[in-house]
Amino acid sequence: MSDTKKNKSTVDIYGQQYTIVGTESTSHIRLIASMVDDKMREIGSANPSLDTSKLAVLTAVNAVNDYIKMKDRVESLEAEIKRLKD
Amino acid sequence: MSDTKKNKSTVDIYGQQYTIVGTESTSHIRLIASMVDDKMREIGSANPSLDTSKLAVLTAVNAVNDYIKMKDRVESLEAEIKRLKD
Repeated sequence: MSDTKKNKSTVDIYGQQYTIVGTESTSHIRLIASMVDDKMREIGSANPSLDTSKLAVLTAVNAVNDYIKMKDRVESLEAEIKRLKD
Repeated sequence: MSDTKKNKSTVDIYGQQYTIVGTESTSHIRLIASMVDDKMREIGSANPSLDTSKLAVLTAVNAVNDYIKMKDRVESLEAEIKRLKD
C-alpha cells in the first residue's frame, strides 16, 4: 500500500497510443507526451528517411542531452548558492 | 562558415548504429548514447512485450520528464539566488 496515487493516462505520440502510469498528474503526462510528439515531428521532417524506431531513439538522445545540460546548470547554480551563503 | 566545430560520432544504441552530428565532443555524445541505451534496456526488461519503436518512444517520454524536473529545479534555484542577492 502506498499513499502515492498512481495516474493512468492514454496519450497519442506520433500516431500511436501509449498508456502511461505514473505519480504525475494526467495533465503533466499529456504535456510530456506532446513535447515528445513535437520533437519527433521536428526530427522527422529534418530526416524524412528515418523509420519511427530510429526517429524515437534520436528523440530520446536529444532529450537526454537537454537533461544533461539542465543537470549541469543545476550544479553550477547550487555552487553559486553555496558561495552566496558562505 | 562557422567557428563551431561539428563532430560526427557513430554510436550503438540498442543494437542499432546511429551517426550523430553535433557541436558536443565525441565523448559527450558517447555518454548520452550509453545513457539512452541503458534506459532502453531498463524499460525493455520491465516491459518485454514492447517493440523497439514503442520502447524508444517511452524512453524519450522518460527523458523529457527528467528534463522537465531539472528545468523546474533550475527555476527554483534561480529564484533562490535572486532572493539571496536582494
